[in-house]
Amino acid sequence: MSEPLRLGIAGLGTVGSGVVKIVEKHAEMLERRAGRPITISAVSARTRDKDRGFDVNAYAWEDDPVVLARRDDVDVLVELMGGSDGPAKAATEAAIAAGKDVVTANKAMLAINGQALAEAAEANDRVIRFEAAVAGGIPVVKALTEGLAGNEITRVMGVMNGTCNYILTRMEHAGLTYDEVFEEAAKLGYLEADPTLDVGGIDAGHKLALLAAVAFGTKVDFDGIKLEGIERISIEDIEQAADMGYRIKLLGVARLTGEGLEQRMTPCLVPADSPIGQLENATNMVVLEGDAVGQIVLRGAGAGEGPTASAVMSDVIDLARGARVHTFGQSAAGLVAVPAVQSVTPAPYYLRMELLDEPGALAKIAAALGNSGISIDRMRQYGHTATTAPVLIVTHKTTRPELDDALDAMAATGVLASEPVSIRIEDV
Amino acid sequence: MSEPLRLGIAGLGTVGSGVVKIVEKHAEMLERRAGRPITISAVSARTRDKDRGFDVNAYAWEDDPVVLARRDDVDVLVELMGGSDGPAKAATEAAIAAGKDVVTANKAMLAINGQALAEAAEANDRVIRFEAAVAGGIPVVKALTEGLAGNEITRVMGVMNGTCNYILTRMEHAGLTYDEVFEEAAKLGYLEADPTLDVGGIDAGHKLALLAAVAFGTKVDFDGIKLEGIERISIEDIEQAADMGYRIKLLGVARLTGEGLEQRMTPCLVPADSPIGQLENATNMVVLEGDAVGQIVLRGAGAGEGPTASAVMSDVIDLARGARVHTFGQSAAGLVAVPAVQSVTPAPYYLRMELLDEPGALAKIAAALGNSGISIDRMRQYGHTATTAPVLIVTHKTTRPELDDALDAMAATGVLASEPVSIRIEDV
Repeated sequence: MSEPLRLGIAGLGTVGSGVVKIVEKHAEMLERRAGRPITISAVSARTRDKDRGFDVNAYAWEDDPVVLARRDDVDVLVELMGGSDGPAKAATEAAIAAGKDVVTANKAMLAINGQALAEAAEANDRVIRFEAAVAGGIPVVKALTEGLAGNEITRVMGVMNGTCNYILTRMEHAGLTYDEVFEEAAKLGYLEADPTLDVGGIDAGHKLALLAAVAFGTKVDFDGIKLEGIERISIEDIEQAADMGYRIKLLGVARLTGEGLEQRMTPCLVPADSPIGQLENATNMVVLEGDAVGQIVLRGAGAGEGPTASAVMSDVIDLARGARVHTFGQSAAGLVAVPAVQSVTPAPYYLRMELLDEPGALAKIAAALGNSGISIDRMRQYGHTATTAPVLIVTHKTTRPELDDALDAMAATGVLASEPVSIRIEDV
Repeated sequence: MSEPLRLGIAGLGTVGSGVVKIVEKHAEMLERRAGRPITISAVSARTRDKDRGFDVNAYAWEDDPVVLARRDDVDVLVELMGGSDGPAKAATEAAIAAGKDVVTANKAMLAINGQALAEAAEANDRVIRFEAAVAGGIPVVKALTEGLAGNEITRVMGVMNGTCNYILTRMEHAGLTYDEVFEEAAKLGYLEADPTLDVGGIDAGHKLALLAAVAFGTKVDFDGIKLEGIERISIEDIEQAADMGYRIKLLGVARLTGEGLEQRMTPCLVPADSPIGQLENATNMVVLEGDAVGQIVLRGAGAGEGPTASAVMSDVIDLARGARVHTFGQSAAGLVAVPAVQSVTPAPYYLRMELLDEPGALAKIAAALGNSGISIDRMRQYGHTATTAPVLIVTHKTTRPELDDALDAMAATGVLASEPVSIRIEDV
């Protein structure tokens, strides 16, 4: 086992550069831990000449990541280009076909093409490892596939998009609107080129889809996720929630029930004093629940050069040690397709709406809820403008379908001045 | 890889029974995840006839765990008897000599004999895995040896004795004295047969010694730990700390510095709103800091049948999958012996003392501190008895040696009515 494990790194952005730096800086430590040297044979990126904090000329250069993936002196393709298809997928497929394992941080590629890629890898007796694709430096894929492998996993939850959590906590602390903080985040470079990936919950949804597959042995089902971003969260909602002892988080929840796989990535109210409620800024948190272990909470940096490169290196070191767990923790052939189901777990809901300032408006809304079988825990009208009155309602536990019925009935009353905001209150 | 991995389980107490139940209940799931069946060939315990919630007659029985360890139909010895020497060590050595891997929850055995056992295992190309020995169900050994293997670890901290944390939080919430809660805990069966193992910090110290070895690649050095239990913590200290925004935790801290290995397991004041400060009851928390990943926080149940059995199964599944990381994450021959050093990292200290109620007493104490170069952040005298006056002091940052000088000087003043309580305030 003293032969080196030779990497080919495709993609030299923040994460790729971070990986190169760790391999260079900690060569001796890595060899001691892995039992053999870890080296870099070749690299590939869109631009060769760019200051990345290391000497790119120290490694063979390939313009084409597919050619990189096939090189004889590459044992493992480290795919850090991103994108669900295109060069990332092509290079991954080429590496597998050439008999090489793949380490990737590419959540989009695996959320969309994970099953096919895992099957291809397995057919070639190879694995795709993706610790860096979920929750940055937190070793959560390893915790699920290995650390808690003796458990039937009952629920997975997580705050896994640092940008969204930054926006929400910044709004709260600075009393700024969503648009104001969005502008700030854009200027700070916190947003993806297509910001919908972040604020629309897509990026976090990709991560949840991967965790659910690993947790429940189901086929990755990104399309089955009930997805809702944070764009409609107002500073008013944040302040009203805080007033009642809650904070708003973009929370992912996955659970396998008798009916099917429930996956949600939506804004939720969570108790302000819960571990998830206390999460500030760009930090990520994942909560894993198993039948033997109970609840395990993992917290750490969800993005950035160091944390993500740390996760990539974890996979690389596993491969160097000869530990080659199947892509999704078990044979891809055994992953089951289960129907996507909406949450039928009852929960209280937070509702905020503007009512027309006319007699009986509040009574009509209360009646609409009552007629749908939803009882009211708290209700208050808290000041009004010239023509409308804001109203806040916290319901007792109800299901989403019941609530949707009630929202339809509320719309039919004609007293709503705008579409109500409805946010689930999650027991975390 | 379809041949079963066959376990021999030595010790059928809470954890051993929990392991049997998981193997029986989740046979299909375990096979799917491990890629091969996991079976139990034989078991061993002090008493055969005892209701353990499963049929002991389903497995071969051995009175002698050493004989169990050598059985031809046992691939892995699962050692769950406990004790640093005696049958546990004998069975572990026998298993290794017979070419079998060992999974153990035995922190005392590894904290005392870990280096010799790891070397013996390696000489036979075997490994000893001990996820269950540290922080119960939290996969922290795996997080350090694998998940963060690309990091130079800079600090490890943890609250790793549930009984101590239960006692401290129960004292606070119920306003009870240490002795009162100790009695309660004894009645509830929360204490070891020798309670000093818990309240004296020894059990938590064993765990810290193992984490430090894994984190820093140093030889296990339990004797090098500065160890202090919670027996001297009074409800008065807890209430005074709370009043200043702190909580008292039995906190382990390990750090490798240029001078040597610093390991402490001592009561500390930590900010009440920090993750460690918020820890309630018997829950454990471990904080890992690495040069790339930053800070990772792991929280979960630190003891109990399910959580500890979950950790045992994690190691068993790794072995079934063929993942055999060295006992301490690298070759035992490469683990270095470094001198144990006291903390020289400056920190503020909390001091509480009873002064004789005589003129100038407070001035003499203040002078003793000042003469040792320690400045005072806060000082207050908060009521007095007929002959003594309680005084509370929070110092600015100072080192333990400086503080010890000051404590000597304070004793020499003759105005102390009792030995002062001094507790480090840790930045967590």
